[in-house]
Amino acid sequence: MDYKEQALKAHKEWNGKLETISKAPVKDRDALSIAYTPGVAEPCREIAKDKNLAYTYTMKANTVAVVSDGSAVLGLGNIGPYAAMPVMEGKCVLFKEFGNINAVPICLDTQDTEEIIKAVTQIAPAFGGINLEDISAPRCFEIEERLKKILDIPVFHDDQHGTAIVVLAGIINALKVTGKQKENCKVVVNGAGSAGIAITKLLLQYGFLHITMCDKDGILNKSYPNLNWMQQKMTEVTNLENASGTLADALVGADIFVGVSAPNLVSPQMAASMNKDAIIFAMANPTPEIMPADAKAAGVKVVGTGRSDFPNQINNVVAFPGIFKGALEGRASQITEEMKLAAANAIAGLVSDEELNEDFIMPEAFDPWVAEAVSSAVKSHISK
Amino acid sequence: MDYKEQALKAHKEWNGKLETISKAPVKDRDALSIAYTPGVAEPCREIAKDKNLAYTYTMKANTVAVVSDGSAVLGLGNIGPYAAMPVMEGKCVLFKEFGNINAVPICLDTQDTEEIIKAVTQIAPAFGGINLEDISAPRCFEIEERLKKILDIPVFHDDQHGTAIVVLAGIINALKVTGKQKENCKVVVNGAGSAGIAITKLLLQYGFLHITMCDKDGILNKSYPNLNWMQQKMTEVTNLENASGTLADALVGADIFVGVSAPNLVSPQMAASMNKDAIIFAMANPTPEIMPADAKAAGVKVVGTGRSDFPNQINNVVAFPGIFKGALEGRASQITEEMKLAAANAIAGLVSDEELNEDFIMPEAFDPWVAEAVSSAVKSHISK
Repeated sequence: MDYKEQALKAHKEWNGKLETISKAPVKDRDALSIAYTPGVAEPCREIAKDKNLAYTYTMKANTVAVVSDGSAVLGLGNIGPYAAMPVMEGKCVLFKEFGNINAVPICLDTQDTEEIIKAVTQIAPAFGGINLEDISAPRCFEIEERLKKILDIPVFHDDQHGTAIVVLAGIINALKVTGKQKENCKVVVNGAGSAGIAITKLLLQYGFLHITMCDKDGILNKSYPNLNWMQQKMTEVTNLENASGTLADALVGADIFVGVSAPNLVSPQMAASMNKDAIIFAMANPTPEIMPADAKAAGVKVVGTGRSDFPNQINNVVAFPGIFKGALEGRASQITEEMKLAAANAIAGLVSDEELNEDFIMPEAFDPWVAEAVSSAVKSHISK
Repeated sequence: MDYKEQALKAHKEWNGKLETISKAPVKDRDALSIAYTPGVAEPCREIAKDKNLAYTYTMKANTVAVVSDGSAVLGLGNIGPYAAMPVMEGKCVLFKEFGNINAVPICLDTQDTEEIIKAVTQIAPAFGGINLEDISAPRCFEIEERLKKILDIPVFHDDQHGTAIVVLAGIINALKVTGKQKENCKVVVNGAGSAGIAITKLLLQYGFLHITMCDKDGILNKSYPNLNWMQQKMTEVTNLENASGTLADALVGADIFVGVSAPNLVSPQMAASMNKDAIIFAMANPTPEIMPADAKAAGVKVVGTGRSDFPNQINNVVAFPGIFKGALEGRASQITEEMKLAAANAIAGLVSDEELNEDFIMPEAFDPWVAEAVSSAVKSHISK
C-alpha cells in the first residue's frame, strides 16, 4: 500500500483527526452545578464586567482558530472549504502536538474578501488567535492586514509568515556555513505569491539588500504584466536596478535562490551559473525546483527542500506552534516583525555550532524543545 | 465555600472546560506524512470530487457548533459573546459527556439577524450540525427558520426545542400519573419567549387543543400590546376563545401550568384554583414560579422544576445530546417535528410503569442510556 492509499485508509478510520474533550467532569449533579447551571453564571458575570477575564475563565487564552476559505490548498489549488478540511484538521493536530495549543478548524463557505473579514471578526471572541491558512493571493494580504487592525488578538497567515520565518532561519545558518554576508548577497526568490512575497519582505527586514523576485514571466520589474497591488509594491523594494529577463538571467551570479514555485524550474546549468558556495532552497512540493543531488553536482553548497526525505527540510512546523505559544502566553495583541525575527533567530540558534554543516542547518522538527525555544524568544519580544 | 465561589475557582483552574486533542499520532516523519503533507492531499482530492466524503474523512460527521450571540444567556440577559463563553463551553462539555459528540463554542460578535445568519452559513462546512443557544426572541425564530432553509445540516435552537421536548416528555408521563387526556386538558404556558412559544407549538403538535399563553400583561390575545410577529402568530392557534385577563384568571380550572417566566408568579391560591390533579412545571431558575411544597399543599398532583434538588427536574440534558446523536448518525438534514415527538416519547418511555409516580416522571439525567434511547428513536424517524 503506498502512502496515498495509507493516507486515505487512515483518514477514514480516524473519521476526523481532531476531537473535543471535556476538562470539567460532570459525573453527578454537584459537578454539573459547578461546570454548568447554576454555577457557570458566576464566570459569566465576571466576564460581563471585564471581558479580559475571558482569558482566565474560558479556553480563549489557549485556543486558535485555523481559518481557510479553501482557495489555495497545498498544491491542490482552489478546492473549496469542504475539501480543505483534512488540511485544517491536520494543522490543528500540529498546533496541539507541537505547541499544546487547542485549535479549531474553520472552513469558510465564502471567498469574498469582505465576507471573510466579517466572519473572522465575528467568530473572534472565543479565540485567542487566528491562524489564516491556504487563502489565495492577493486576497490573503488584505484579509490579514485588515483583520490585524480590527482584532485585538494575533492574526497570522502561516503560508506567508511561517514560511518566511523558517526560510530566514535556514538562511541565517546557511550564511554561517558559507561565510557569506547578508549585505553582499544577491538573492533570487521565485514565485511571487503569498509565500514568496512574505519571504522577500522578511529578508529585507532582516537586512538583505539585493533581492530579485521572479514569477512565470521572469524577473519582476515595474513593467511586468498584470502585477497585483502587492506585487506592484514589491517592485518598489526589490530589483532596484529594474532589471528584466528570465529566471535563468536572474540566477547568474546569485548567492541565494529561494523557490516557492513549481517542479524542475532550475536546471543544473542555471544552478552552476550562481555565485560560489551558493545556497538553494527549492521548496516546490513534492518535486523541488531542482533535485538536491543535481544542485550539489552543479556546485551549490547548501540545498534545502520542503521534503523530509532530503537533508535541510524547510518545514513550517518548527515555527508556527512556538510562535503562537509565545504570543498566547505573553498575551500579545499582534505578531510583530520583531517577534518574527526573534523566532527565526531562535530556530537557527537551535542548531549548535558543532552540529551545523551544509547538510544540517535546520533543527529537527520533532525536537520537543523547538516550540519551547521559539515561544520564549517570541514572548520576550512582545511590545506592550 | 458556596457554590458560586467554587464555580469561579473551578473555572479559573480549568482555564477552559474544553480542549481539542489529536486522534492522529504525529510522532515521526512517517506519521506526519500520513496525517499532514503529503498524504493529506488524498482525502482533500476525494472530497473535492464529492463533498459528502467530508463525512467520511473529517470530523464533520460528529461535530456540532454551539453558536450564541450572548443576547439571552441563562437568567443573565444580554451579556454579549465574551461573557457567554463559559455557558457555551459548558454546553460543549455536555455534548461530549452525554452524547459523545464533538462540540465547538462559537460566540458571535454581532447581534444583527442577517449577520448571524450569514456567519453561521459561512462556518457550516466544518460542522455536522448547528446548536443555536441563548439567542433572544423574536430574532431566534427567524435565525433558526432561515438557517434551516439555507443549510443541509440540522439546525436546532435548544432553548426552544430542547426545552419543549423535555416538557412534553414530562407531560406525557404526568398525564399517565393523573389519568388526564390531552384532548381535554386546559393548558396555561406562562412566558411568551422562545421556550414558551416552542413548548406551546410542540404541545399543539402532540395533540393538545386548549392552550392559553400568558406574559407580563396577562393572557395573550389579539389585542395584547406590542406582540412580536411570532407572538402574533401564536394568538391564532392558542386562546381560541380570545379570552383576556390575568395569569390568575387563566389558571382557574386549568389542568396544566408550564412556567418559563420568573420567580413566585404563581401563588398558592392560584395553584388551588386549578383543576383537580393539576400538573405544574415551574421552571424559572433558580427560584421557580411556585415552590413545589407550596404547590403540593395547594392540591397540585405533579410538580416539576428546573432544579436538581427537587423531584422531577425538567432538564434539557436528557434531550439535546441524544437528538443530535441520532440526527448525526442518521445523517439527517433537518430535525423535524416527527423527530422531536419521537424524542419526547423516548424520554418519557425511559421511566418504566413500575417507577412512574408523581415524584418520578423524568429519567435520571446521568443515566447513560438516555442519549442512546433518544438517539435511536430520533434516528428511526428521519425522513430521507
